[in-house]
Amino acid sequence: MNYKLILSTILKVVKVEAVLMILPLIASAIYRETTVFYTFLITMVSAYLLSFILERLVKPSSQGFYSKDGFITVAFSWIAVSIIGSLPFYISGEIPSFIDALFETVSGFTTTGASILKDVESLSHGLLLWRSFTHFIGGMGVLVFIMAITSKTTDRPIHILRAEMPGPIVSKLVPRSKDTAKILYLIYISLTIICIIFLLFGGMDLFEAILHALGTAGTGGFGMKNNSIAGYSPYIQWVLAIFMLLFGVNFNLYYLLLIKKVGAVLKSTELKTYFIIVLVSIITITINVYSLYGNFMGALTASVFQTSSIITTTGYSTADFNSWPTLSKTILFALMFIGGCSGSTAGGIKVSRVVILFKKIRLTLKKLIHPNAVSVVKFEGEKIEDGTSLEIGNYVSLYFICFAIITLLLSFNNFDFETTVSSVAACFNNVGPAFGLAGPISSYADFNGFSKLVLSFAMLMGRLEIYPLLLALSPSTWIKK
Amino acid sequence: MNYKLILSTILKVVKVEAVLMILPLIASAIYRETTVFYTFLITMVSAYLLSFILERLVKPSSQGFYSKDGFITVAFSWIAVSIIGSLPFYISGEIPSFIDALFETVSGFTTTGASILKDVESLSHGLLLWRSFTHFIGGMGVLVFIMAITSKTTDRPIHILRAEMPGPIVSKLVPRSKDTAKILYLIYISLTIICIIFLLFGGMDLFEAILHALGTAGTGGFGMKNNSIAGYSPYIQWVLAIFMLLFGVNFNLYYLLLIKKVGAVLKSTELKTYFIIVLVSIITITINVYSLYGNFMGALTASVFQTSSIITTTGYSTADFNSWPTLSKTILFALMFIGGCSGSTAGGIKVSRVVILFKKIRLTLKKLIHPNAVSVVKFEGEKIEDGTSLEIGNYVSLYFICFAIITLLLSFNNFDFETTVSSVAACFNNVGPAFGLAGPISSYADFNGFSKLVLSFAMLMGRLEIYPLLLALSPSTWIKK
Repeated sequence: MNYKLILSTILKVVKVEAVLMILPLIASAIYRETTVFYTFLITMVSAYLLSFILERLVKPSSQGFYSKDGFITVAFSWIAVSIIGSLPFYISGEIPSFIDALFETVSGFTTTGASILKDVESLSHGLLLWRSFTHFIGGMGVLVFIMAITSKTTDRPIHILRAEMPGPIVSKLVPRSKDTAKILYLIYISLTIICIIFLLFGGMDLFEAILHALGTAGTGGFGMKNNSIAGYSPYIQWVLAIFMLLFGVNFNLYYLLLIKKVGAVLKSTELKTYFIIVLVSIITITINVYSLYGNFMGALTASVFQTSSIITTTGYSTADFNSWPTLSKTILFALMFIGGCSGSTAGGIKVSRVVILFKKIRLTLKKLIHPNAVSVVKFEGEKIEDGTSLEIGNYVSLYFICFAIITLLLSFNNFDFETTVSSVAACFNNVGPAFGLAGPISSYADFNGFSKLVLSFAMLMGRLEIYPLLLALSPSTWIKK
Repeated sequence: MNYKLILSTILKVVKVEAVLMILPLIASAIYRETTVFYTFLITMVSAYLLSFILERLVKPSSQGFYSKDGFITVAFSWIAVSIIGSLPFYISGEIPSFIDALFETVSGFTTTGASILKDVESLSHGLLLWRSFTHFIGGMGVLVFIMAITSKTTDRPIHILRAEMPGPIVSKLVPRSKDTAKILYLIYISLTIICIIFLLFGGMDLFEAILHALGTAGTGGFGMKNNSIAGYSPYIQWVLAIFMLLFGVNFNLYYLLLIKKVGAVLKSTELKTYFIIVLVSIITITINVYSLYGNFMGALTASVFQTSSIITTTGYSTADFNSWPTLSKTILFALMFIGGCSGSTAGGIKVSRVVILFKKIRLTLKKLIHPNAVSVVKFEGEKIEDGTSLEIGNYVSLYFICFAIITLLLSFNNFDFETTVSSVAACFNNVGPAFGLAGPISSYADFNGFSKLVLSFAMLMGRLEIYPLLLALSPSTWIKK
């Protein structure tokens, strides 16, 4: 393994993070939040200087960079970014416990949106903005961002793209990974700006609009009100619902739209399946919660918002869905696991994997009926080979194994069964709010320190799709034969 | 598909079932239960005569029998056996609702042991025995039984063995499937008799001992007391716990013991893993529930009993584990899914699949570290090929998809989340008691008719390992191209 190159990449990531803190620094200057301003200034300067100095000391002797190095770089970059990112919360004293600050930051970068804050409204503007900005940075990936802005062309980018981008198949839009990253970020930023504009039209002030657009773009879910989005107008709720859905779509499709390949977009099986799942869920939930609202529009709005929020693993809420009928809760629980499309900012297993899995199962049945039938699974026009290293069936099984192990660890906290299981689901799938004591009108404040660390780990594991962290934990990665 | 041969096989199964009703018939004669006696007599005679006549009418013209036919035969045999088997409960009036009677019988044959009876102690001896006897019949498989007693040698047996026996790899112990079936049944019956003897030593009367031995052998869990095994002595509890564990072991290993291949038994990865899981669970639960019992032996006995009962998917209980701490509950919940060894009477995913899955995941990690490493997964000395039609990863994923769909259907009943999720887990994995309102001191009586049918389907799906029922539901099985 190329330790020096990995370390120097991580240091570069921290440097970029320090620079990105300018945004909350400005916000705290505007709102005259002195403590927070100096907190950001100190964190920025020391993080930048330290990485700058260390970078000079660690000169990579070789540029060799393999798949394994990509995974390890991604794993440790995310851990580093989370630790540095939690400092402003901790140093400013607004989150007095370091574990809490770390939980909040990991929750931000992984676009989970699970919070330990009982009263988010008491947070300063600077930290509120930083909190939501972490969603935006984590959504598309911090390493992908660096790829987009650095000029060097090596064989590093594709390994990092594979390890950091969600979904089973990572395809380059254009021959150079750097340009792919640039295009993805341009689409991402443009959509976010459009979202801000729509929110401004709904009467939000600029700060509010930026904050919520960042949380939506990253499909994160951090807001600035204790009741999330429940207090905003139906217009705002619909705008957010639609943009959440848009950010749950594979960004490659937006690129295809830009280069006017509309046909290819309409043929996308993942997109069709995604919208069918959304539609069926919305209809079922609307009927199921109708009696709670008493009118069609109220039930529909709540159903559309919550379906969009959960399948895209954003986690904004306009209703206490924890008190909804069990059918609606079970649907939302299932949507948490399905998640958005691959190549989007959403979490979960991803629609593409679910589609490929169903196709594989149909193939198995077909083979039982016609044992000699030669057949392959096709997805988006491409053959899915059997026995590839990151096979869907094994990945999904691994997903549930990790889910089970994390749940076992969390049950030491001795919360009730529903709270335990659903909060692991909500964190591992990067959703945020769960059921029971971790429902949308509560927070993760009452979990103990160990549980908060376990859930932070679960969030990272979910965002990075298991393998980077599993590889980092595996002894055979580190032991030379 | 060879419809006529399938139908005639199903009719043969029903005939055998009618003959097997002699046991409860004798019991009801001994206990002078007139109504039940005549109920069994009428059911037996009419089921036998009807199948006898129909069998003459359906003469299979060809003996061609493929894998697909095996699956379909198994699916419909089990449905037929359940419907006929439920008649004594219904006709006698002891279970007045037909859906309830069907639920109870499916629960019996699938060795689930989930009951709709609020007061099992009011049931007649004849029906109590029939109820437990269905566990015994279903445990090793009714078609395997027929295979053992019929003399014809065709290519049918191996397809049926594959479709009815639990586990990913079905191996014939001896060249002829018929002899394999005979050996398995002899081991099964011998172990059951030994269990009866041990129970008699503990002071049970003969009826009680037979009843509980049948429930243990089939890893079913039907008993005759409202508090299951809680009222019996620690000796009885330990005997049952040990025999449950023994019936959760792959029966092939007992055959290897009989032919003195002790070395092969000790080398079995599945066996070792099974006992390691049991041991770790017992230790953790004992520590976790210690404060509830206040003494080490009490906590240990409860922990040993419940661990054995749940991992073998039997479902006997000596404690209301629903009120145990969440850690213990989560362990039990995980054990429900793991289940016993393949080739045993236990349900669940099976230890062998879990082992193979972990090996596959390790291989994936290895390939990420050394991309060019050529490596295969080995299990019990045999290579596990990639891309086989019943691939482990896909099977486990399919298992969770089915679990999710059944949970969605059950949530229409609007019980709380814990009850809904855990009762699907308990039925699909053929365990029996769940958490919440379907806990060990409650019953499934309060679910509505639709839910009872859904859960019955789940039990059949779990026992037959999904594919037979999925194939029966798949349109392409029935439509000729």
